[in-house]
Amino acid sequence: MHLDLSEFTARQARPLRVKMDEFQRERRLKHLIFASQLELEHLNRLQRLADIIRQLSKTKKGSDALRSLLSHKRAMLYFTQPSTRTFLSFMAACQILGLTCNEVRDPATSSEMKRESPLDSIRMFSSYFDVIIMRSPVAGFSECCAYLMNDLEKHEMRSVPIINAGSGSEEHPTQALLDIYTIQRTFQFDSANGTTAGRLPDLSKKFPGLTPGLNNKTYLFCGDLGRGRTVRSLATTLTNYQNVRMFFVSPDHEKLKLDLALRKRLESAGVEFHEFDSLDATWQSQPILALTDCLYMTRIQMEHNSAADSAAMNEMDLSPYHLSAARLEKLRDYAPILHPFPRDSVVQEIPTFVDADPRAMYFRQARNGMWVRAALLVHLFDVADQLLFLHSDFYGV
Amino acid sequence: MHLDLSEFTARQARPLRVKMDEFQRERRLKHLIFASQLELEHLNRLQRLADIIRQLSKTKKGSDALRSLLSHKRAMLYFTQPSTRTFLSFMAACQILGLTCNEVRDPATSSEMKRESPLDSIRMFSSYFDVIIMRSPVAGFSECCAYLMNDLEKHEMRSVPIINAGSGSEEHPTQALLDIYTIQRTFQFDSANGTTAGRLPDLSKKFPGLTPGLNNKTYLFCGDLGRGRTVRSLATTLTNYQNVRMFFVSPDHEKLKLDLALRKRLESAGVEFHEFDSLDATWQSQPILALTDCLYMTRIQMEHNSAADSAAMNEMDLSPYHLSAARLEKLRDYAPILHPFPRDSVVQEIPTFVDADPRAMYFRQARNGMWVRAALLVHLFDVADQLLFLHSDFYGV
Amino acid sequence: MHLDLSEFTARQARPLRVKMDEFQRERRLKHLIFASQLELEHLNRLQRLADIIRQLSKTKKGSDALRSLLSHKRAMLYFTQPSTRTFLSFMAACQILGLTCNEVRDPATSSEMKRESPLDSIRMFSSYFDVIIMRSPVAGFSECCAYLMNDLEKHEMRSVPIINAGSGSEEHPTQALLDIYTIQRTFQFDSANGTTAGRLPDLSKKFPGLTPGLNNKTYLFCGDLGRGRTVRSLATTLTNYQNVRMFFVSPDHEKLKLDLALRKRLESAGVEFHEFDSLDATWQSQPILALTDCLYMTRIQMEHNSAADSAAMNEMDLSPYHLSAARLEKLRDYAPILHPFPRDSVVQEIPTFVDADPRAMYFRQARNGMWVRAALLVHLFDVADQLLFLHSDFYGV
Repeated sequence: MHLDLSEFTARQARPLRVKMDEFQRERRLKHLIFASQLELEHLNRLQRLADIIRQLSKTKKGSDALRSLLSHKRAMLYFTQPSTRTFLSFMAACQILGLTCNEVRDPATSSEMKRESPLDSIRMFSSYFDVIIMRSPVAGFSECCAYLMNDLEKHEMRSVPIINAGSGSEEHPTQALLDIYTIQRTFQFDSANGTTAGRLPDLSKKFPGLTPGLNNKTYLFCGDLGRGRTVRSLATTLTNYQNVRMFFVSPDHEKLKLDLALRKRLESAGVEFHEFDSLDATWQSQPILALTDCLYMTRIQMEHNSAADSAAMNEMDLSPYHLSAARLEKLRDYAPILHPFPRDSVVQEIPTFVDADPRAMYFRQARNGMWVRAALLVHLFDVADQLLFLHSDFYGV
Repeated sequence: MHLDLSEFTARQARPLRVKMDEFQRERRLKHLIFASQLELEHLNRLQRLADIIRQLSKTKKGSDALRSLLSHKRAMLYFTQPSTRTFLSFMAACQILGLTCNEVRDPATSSEMKRESPLDSIRMFSSYFDVIIMRSPVAGFSECCAYLMNDLEKHEMRSVPIINAGSGSEEHPTQALLDIYTIQRTFQFDSANGTTAGRLPDLSKKFPGLTPGLNNKTYLFCGDLGRGRTVRSLATTLTNYQNVRMFFVSPDHEKLKLDLALRKRLESAGVEFHEFDSLDATWQSQPILALTDCLYMTRIQMEHNSAADSAAMNEMDLSPYHLSAARLEKLRDYAPILHPFPRDSVVQEIPTFVDADPRAMYFRQARNGMWVRAALLVHLFDVADQLLFLHSDFYGV
Repeated sequence: MHLDLSEFTARQARPLRVKMDEFQRERRLKHLIFASQLELEHLNRLQRLADIIRQLSKTKKGSDALRSLLSHKRAMLYFTQPSTRTFLSFMAACQILGLTCNEVRDPATSSEMKRESPLDSIRMFSSYFDVIIMRSPVAGFSECCAYLMNDLEKHEMRSVPIINAGSGSEEHPTQALLDIYTIQRTFQFDSANGTTAGRLPDLSKKFPGLTPGLNNKTYLFCGDLGRGRTVRSLATTLTNYQNVRMFFVSPDHEKLKLDLALRKRLESAGVEFHEFDSLDATWQSQPILALTDCLYMTRIQMEHNSAADSAAMNEMDLSPYHLSAARLEKLRDYAPILHPFPRDSVVQEIPTFVDADPRAMYFRQARNGMWVRAALLVHLFDVADQLLFLHSDFYGV
């Protein structure tokens, strides 16, 4: 790809805090590029919108009303990095709101063979479509596209929102959004989620510190922590909550363990975290799984291995990073089990027998992704008011 | 493909009769996996629904009403075996009813490269979409997907209908559906089909045994009978009708002639059938074509040949399996000519001059596929009542 | 591709004037195959329709009304030659009018592997869909498809409109349409286009001959004139206008300069044209750029080079065909700059600094393509009356 983003280098180099302002308008997001943009206020609003969309979708009348919300808009899904799950989830989210979908998925599209610059492609998309949802192997590309759109807006030319659906190895902000939404629903302890509904009084006896919501919890991340952009994005987003503790469990391999950037980010956010090399590890004499409120499993991403990595990892015993029956038993009995999927069917970091466990949230998590991505589109297109109005029409104020 | 369907082996091994109950709910189909599921009652209902859909589609108002019927549903077309015709036909069928379409067509999707199990993929699809229409090179895969969905339903989890759009070399039930629908329309002898409309009194003089409908007919199948799953599916479905006789015309080659499984199925259904090695053959001193009420031509599927097959078939004279002008003349003058298409433009088992013959039904057949697949979706989503209501709104009771 | 179009050879060989009648019904286009079909009356009507569609699209209510116009129709985009821009533009055009889109883009679809004839494929598409928009590397293929459709119509069989979206190296009529539309909007000198709005009185002082509209103008084409089908299609269409002069600037290479067919066409239309080998050339002692009302830049299509061509072109100095700052200054200060895109990001025939110039029309041009293609669909489906009715509902008569 002839990707010359040099005109944006200076802007990219600025600190995150400074950049973020350019990606919102007042308090509303204009583009979603970084997980760090997702502050508590946004997370709460998006969760509320997602709940409403989910509820309206239960009836044909509600679905039809939802589909009229953005029926006048067209979306471009520009996925030059292979993806099935995120792609389909965004497609479904668009369809729920009546957005028409278009896609370019081939990394070598015809225009690139004709040496079109990727920024020309993006601007072409913005001529035809009303939002660009993009996944790219190039770190920083979606950020630069957002700058391009901002520049066009400044010149009073046509400009559209950019959504980062996975960029390089760094960012996957909408995955963080759906993870947070899934956890939040579990810890609501109300009828919204069957598995924990009404159990708070009982559970509080056994686990006195237990409160509703994402505050005051221990989150355990296990697997490929270094290369999993979902881990990075979720851990970053969790720093919005109070009294959060994180356990990181991974092989002691430079590519797989917590990387320096995230470590620094957590430290500067004042988050308590600890690293371990097995799910059987203990913390202050207690098994870490028995202290865990929420378990986030990931797949070892072998496809990103160098030859040396593969050699090293073939020597490793990876069983300490698999969710065996014995470990499942140690895990707190309300703790949701998440996984960004796909899981590895050969290695089986989560064996299929776990699927029947009421704590297994990974398929609900996928469905939640659809609702919360629809919520994001409602937010970006600034039709939250219309949605709330619709909802009160159906269900009263 | 890491396809481990072992947990379903025992269920797959059961006799068809026993399995079929699990794929329907009362008398309504829940999934369509096998052509054998299509009993007379279903066939009649689906034909009636297809006729109504076809009629409503003739006006803009009717089309718009149809498109509101399933506008709240999303379909996944999961076609890991190449297909243009069946794929587009299902797309069009969905679009007629307002269903939003999504597709995965690449046999090696990104998730499979990441070693996701195909059953995880299917369950992911069922999280986002409301029906899975699937074509797979793996025999039995769609059957196992139906079991997976049934298991989820038993656990009160989200479950969606599965439609088999071609599986392995065995089954293609919706092709049988559209073939039956096309034949039925011809033998209605009423205004629905221009070529035979109003001709029954006249034809009865020349062919005294001729009756409306699919009973009391001779069906001639010609070409690649061993590998054509459409032949298998149609012949199986025709056993629903009374006093049916079948002629099978193919080269005397193990891969091309009637296979043992179908032979046994026909025998146990008490169907009279005979095998020949040329379209010029005779039966009881009469040319078989002069006894044929319906001619079903097929293409020799060279792409499935082994090297030995190719060598053998290159030696063969295949002209006895082509519809020449002389043979066309011998065929009964009302007998519809069907072909599942594509036809071979090099071999020309049906030369293009036949296209102008009023008995040539193969292009109508394609269009019929669209209507009857839409009817199947109406049936599976249990909105037949709404469709009938719509129709009476437009055309009176 | 087993493409046997021999049955159409005689019809193809007829003069254009004779053929064109078969592609229209009264004064309305039935298929759009050749740029020559676009006569002044069509151009004016399509521009008017495009303006209305554009205006209605500005509001949600208008967009929703537009989308009901062809909601009962399904389009097939059959693009066997790679294309991103034209493809997406047609997709968007269909979506604006509520047409459901379907696509076949792989040059080797499964049916062709099974030796289906391309004409069978087209007829299959016409069974499922209501219009076929096609791009093919085979010259004359879309023309033959139009003949096939006409033949079916004659036999009272189902037939649908064919739109040529780029065929061989010859024709790209809808590109001409959008180019003309973009130029026409600029030379309206009214509020429709911000960059020239209200400037005619002022400009007339400096350029006394300047009039509204496309008549009385000098058009400069620069770059790959021999292989660019957009140049051929636009120059042909411009012969509809009066007192038009054309400058052609290209390297003096057989493959790149004006070809014989276009030269003859322009001569027989009585158009004044001149050829140059540099943008710095003069005509009657004046720089050609200072005489230019409209500049049409193109990319040198290196991907069509033979080895010998590449060798020759590598020797050439191509800088005389690039729009440098100095040249931009010489260009008349109202002259729109067009480019069919993509532009070459390495060669930079139009450097990115030009994008900020108010005369740069190439991104608007892309968006115009969407509006005018939607207008073409309205015209072909004969719903112009409904559109005008809609419009008067919204904006009064």
